[in-house]
Amino acid sequence: MRDPKEKKLAEIAKKDEHISYKQVTTQPKKGVMNWLVGRPLPSADAPHQTIGKAVGLAVFASDALSSTAYATQEILVILALAGAGAFGLSIPLSIAIVVLLVIVTISYEQTIHAYPGGGGAYIVARENLGELPAQTAGASLLTDYILTVAVSVSSGIAQLVSAFPQLLDFQVELAVAAVFFIMAINLRGVKESGMAFSIPTYFFIIMLFLTVGIGFFRFVTGSLGQLTDPPELHLIGPVTGLTAFLVLRAFASGTAALTGIEAISNGITAFKEPRSRNAGITLLWMSAILSVLFLSVTFLSNQIGAVPSETETVISQIARTVYNGRNLLYLGTVAATTIILIMAANTAFADFPRLSAIQAGDGFLPRQLTYRGSRLVYSRGIALLAVVASLIIILFKASVTALIPLYAIGVFLSFTLSQVGMARRWWKVGKLANGKSRKKKATNGDGFHAEELTYDPRWRLKMIINSFGGLCTGIVMVVFAVTKFSQGAWVIIILLPVLVMIFFTIKHHYKDLAKRLSLQHYKKPVAIRKQKVIVPVSGVHRGTLEAVRFAKSISNDITAVHVAVDAAEGEKTLIKWQEWAKDVNLVILGSPYRLLYEPLLKYIKTVAADTKANEIVTVVVPEFVPRVGWHSILHTRAAQLLRWRLLFTPKVVIVEVPYVVD
Amino acid sequence: MRDPKEKKLAEIAKKDEHISYKQVTTQPKKGVMNWLVGRPLPSADAPHQTIGKAVGLAVFASDALSSTAYATQEILVILALAGAGAFGLSIPLSIAIVVLLVIVTISYEQTIHAYPGGGGAYIVARENLGELPAQTAGASLLTDYILTVAVSVSSGIAQLVSAFPQLLDFQVELAVAAVFFIMAINLRGVKESGMAFSIPTYFFIIMLFLTVGIGFFRFVTGSLGQLTDPPELHLIGPVTGLTAFLVLRAFASGTAALTGIEAISNGITAFKEPRSRNAGITLLWMSAILSVLFLSVTFLSNQIGAVPSETETVISQIARTVYNGRNLLYLGTVAATTIILIMAANTAFADFPRLSAIQAGDGFLPRQLTYRGSRLVYSRGIALLAVVASLIIILFKASVTALIPLYAIGVFLSFTLSQVGMARRWWKVGKLANGKSRKKKATNGDGFHAEELTYDPRWRLKMIINSFGGLCTGIVMVVFAVTKFSQGAWVIIILLPVLVMIFFTIKHHYKDLAKRLSLQHYKKPVAIRKQKVIVPVSGVHRGTLEAVRFAKSISNDITAVHVAVDAAEGEKTLIKWQEWAKDVNLVILGSPYRLLYEPLLKYIKTVAADTKANEIVTVVVPEFVPRVGWHSILHTRAAQLLRWRLLFTPKVVIVEVPYVVD
Repeated sequence: MRDPKEKKLAEIAKKDEHISYKQVTTQPKKGVMNWLVGRPLPSADAPHQTIGKAVGLAVFASDALSSTAYATQEILVILALAGAGAFGLSIPLSIAIVVLLVIVTISYEQTIHAYPGGGGAYIVARENLGELPAQTAGASLLTDYILTVAVSVSSGIAQLVSAFPQLLDFQVELAVAAVFFIMAINLRGVKESGMAFSIPTYFFIIMLFLTVGIGFFRFVTGSLGQLTDPPELHLIGPVTGLTAFLVLRAFASGTAALTGIEAISNGITAFKEPRSRNAGITLLWMSAILSVLFLSVTFLSNQIGAVPSETETVISQIARTVYNGRNLLYLGTVAATTIILIMAANTAFADFPRLSAIQAGDGFLPRQLTYRGSRLVYSRGIALLAVVASLIIILFKASVTALIPLYAIGVFLSFTLSQVGMARRWWKVGKLANGKSRKKKATNGDGFHAEELTYDPRWRLKMIINSFGGLCTGIVMVVFAVTKFSQGAWVIIILLPVLVMIFFTIKHHYKDLAKRLSLQHYKKPVAIRKQKVIVPVSGVHRGTLEAVRFAKSISNDITAVHVAVDAAEGEKTLIKWQEWAKDVNLVILGSPYRLLYEPLLKYIKTVAADTKANEIVTVVVPEFVPRVGWHSILHTRAAQLLRWRLLFTPKVVIVEVPYVVD
Repeated sequence: MRDPKEKKLAEIAKKDEHISYKQVTTQPKKGVMNWLVGRPLPSADAPHQTIGKAVGLAVFASDALSSTAYATQEILVILALAGAGAFGLSIPLSIAIVVLLVIVTISYEQTIHAYPGGGGAYIVARENLGELPAQTAGASLLTDYILTVAVSVSSGIAQLVSAFPQLLDFQVELAVAAVFFIMAINLRGVKESGMAFSIPTYFFIIMLFLTVGIGFFRFVTGSLGQLTDPPELHLIGPVTGLTAFLVLRAFASGTAALTGIEAISNGITAFKEPRSRNAGITLLWMSAILSVLFLSVTFLSNQIGAVPSETETVISQIARTVYNGRNLLYLGTVAATTIILIMAANTAFADFPRLSAIQAGDGFLPRQLTYRGSRLVYSRGIALLAVVASLIIILFKASVTALIPLYAIGVFLSFTLSQVGMARRWWKVGKLANGKSRKKKATNGDGFHAEELTYDPRWRLKMIINSFGGLCTGIVMVVFAVTKFSQGAWVIIILLPVLVMIFFTIKHHYKDLAKRLSLQHYKKPVAIRKQKVIVPVSGVHRGTLEAVRFAKSISNDITAVHVAVDAAEGEKTLIKWQEWAKDVNLVILGSPYRLLYEPLLKYIKTVAADTKANEIVTVVVPEFVPRVGWHSILHTRAAQLLRWRLLFTPKVVIVEVPYVVD
């Protein structure tokens, strides 16, 4: 009993003679699940199932870092519409995006320290903006995590398939298999999945730094040269002049580099203590790596004269120029890029279950999502993510082109909400008296949701930064939504409000239920003095007599009821009853329309309607239980059906007396 | 209360003060089903839901008569392999087939009078050959009825599609829709479906008699002439010499004319009293019409020089020669042929449910199949047939070519078993003393299964006829199985033994169960003196207290059990318990592996293992019942799960105390 909470519980129980505490160390059954996900972990192990900064970077940064593989290209593909001469604009645009990245990073850095319980944009919005913005942030993040899995796995498999065209017919199957593979690793727990996925993430970081490092060295020494044998330029529309809207669009496309930046703030609880500090440092590292790599890639692409193309990625063009051809280092870089795209899904697997558990804890999602599985991860959230992402992959036939326009709106909506929330927080801080602080009570058991406001003299500056950041991300979101509306963004614009509505409906249900089950104003009803027992009998056999035996032990007001669908069968039952249970009343209900349940239900309801406050109707159902599963199709499930039909009848309790044939 | 059986039941009940009889005239709920199948019929109406000879011919003959549409063609297509000169052989072969038909008809005529309860080959085999041959006959007939539906509907739709090629893509959907249409009509009851299907059947009979009548008239007057513009001859293999095997094969193919001849013997109970007489006369009429039409078609096809073809049927060739072109009478004949092919399915819908009800009554199929629906037909059998036939249509993509080889083996196997069974019956009759008779007790309630043997001086002749018939149909079956083995007949050859095995497994289950539930050698166990009550509680709320209130009314040995997956939650429960139910013992089970059910089940089983003979463990489960269906996904179905896991634990009874939020 290593858990201090359990110890306390045991101590309280000891003081009351009516209450006892026992620890049952039943472990989950050994089986295929055990082999798949590893031995079960006791709750007391939770603190050990956390990760350090190095593994944390691998788990939470893969999504963000993977964007360096395509962000530059996304800018170039838009600028190409203004002619190749406009490619130079990608450098100032990238710098602007990095500035935005810095603002968003600062915002999340503050969030991490202000809300160490995790939840990022969701918690910020909840604490500062209210329930509706919070649920909107939750809905957009959850949707985006699902899309991250679908998009990143689909793009990874697309790369694999372009290398092995014979796999083309199995693209969807392979993508779904990959999703379930990542799911299985994640079910083993955050520590193990972090370890497993560290290698490819660091491999990618090293390869990309090596590439841009050598690139810069060759640029400085003047030996870099130009891209030879450039691929065909990909034009997504007719070439027009350079308009402000086009520049805005290029900027918006480039902000794809920011997706995934929020991951750490949602998953703080996965980090070792001091978790806020560890998570904060990891976030800074991630942003730094991302900024350097993104700027370097953009710079080098300009230097070598890379072009956006459908047949070769910009990373590939840079690598082959830097390494002077398609050699081993080149292949390593391309392979690392492919793997990181699939790995990006892992970040979603780390965050989706945590966020949904927080939302479920708040009552906006089914409570089952708060339950930790045998490996101390939110297994149901992990499974849910895998299933929904797979369905989307199947629905969109694993097509990246079809999925991309749905993506990113959610992220930028949550960025905006998070920034606006933080701005509002600084405003609240500014209203505090100098040197004062205000604590808010924790909203759930783990104590991490407590908000603590302390006066900060620089609140005005911080508020301005966050407001500006929110404005920028808000604009990006709108540009995204407008430019990609008809390609699929409309799905998200319809889906988000629907999800938010569902969340509130769930919340309403739980709230309503809690009120109705609540013991406030509860008056204990009178004790039950008499049970009117009804025993439905289909025939007279051992099972029936067993039920009658039970009935006799709870009451002496017993009536057996037989529905005579077939009069001959009724006669048989009657005669056997006289022989075996003549001391118990039997009512035979003739049923000329051969209905079995309706007459019985009518009878029970009539009796129930005629009970006093201290009486109750108990239906004792003899139930034959077949030992072999399929045998149940050979029997009408009378007891089952009666249960369903009687559950809503007030003052009726159902007793099943099983008769197991052994 | 028109039913005399019900009256008797009510009278017996009146004599015993403990027993009462009430008639509950609850009718099935009105709804879409009512509109679809008609108002419910009381059981007492059963005698009125029977059919006369004219409707009986329409219901049961459509399958057999539809074979005149293709039997001649089947012979010619085989004979074509020996060259067109061999076509003349079709006349002696047809005569031979009609002789076989006469033998089979005589056999079934005897069967109808010997076994007025229906069941045909199944009953004959059961009463004379034993259980294994009976179940073999049952399996082959049921399989064949399913195939009849699949084949006849598919072929009808194929004809429709060749007329309207734009429907080609919806062939399977149309076929399935047709099956469910025929099902719906049959669910209305045999009388109404008979009426509905009489028109097309008699239309076919009239059109075909008109065609062959005019044909013969023109033949006699010498004005018939030859087929003009003959269609392309269809060759199914290379032309070889005329071998004995080829003749045998042509004969076997022609015996397709016999399929459906057994239908009446299976469905005797659908006829008005005197049912054996009515059914017998209908059978004779059917055989006579079938023989005349079949021989006429074969004769005329020879006279006009018809050829077997894939593009035009022999019937069409005859009709267009007889009517001098594609005029209205020609079109009527072809349309009637198309419709009768679909109608053939209706015979299967009349017989399958009856036969399966008989088999279910004997315990070889799920008992539910004996239950008559609101319209007094075996609705479950009808639905089962429609579902299985539809699945087969979907599986075989409504292809007649793929389905045909599976067909007919079952029918001939049942013919053979029936004939052999009748032969054995004559042998038993022969062993009786002159003028003596022997009665066998009815095996089920309706009294029709009684077998009555009466000495018949002509038993030797009859035995020889049936033996010869059995030999012939047996040979046909073997020829069928061998020549069509690789095209699909192997499926049936594997399927039949599997089905028979399943039937025996079901029988074994029921028999075993009856023995175990039987009250023979049953000693009443001691009365229950004490209930050990366990109340599982997830928290303390109105639902929990309701369960405790119930528990208090049946025992004073009550223990509430809470599994503390989360120690904080456990503490909350403990404190609330002290406040609200401190007089009842509470056991808190710590669950370090976060298992919810296992610790509880272990606890209950430990208590159950420690009970005396006069004690029982009662688990009182408070169950929150959400009013709205989908709300249940927001709750863990604790009660449900406990039920499933505890049903097999001896000495444990489960009580559900529902707490409905209103």
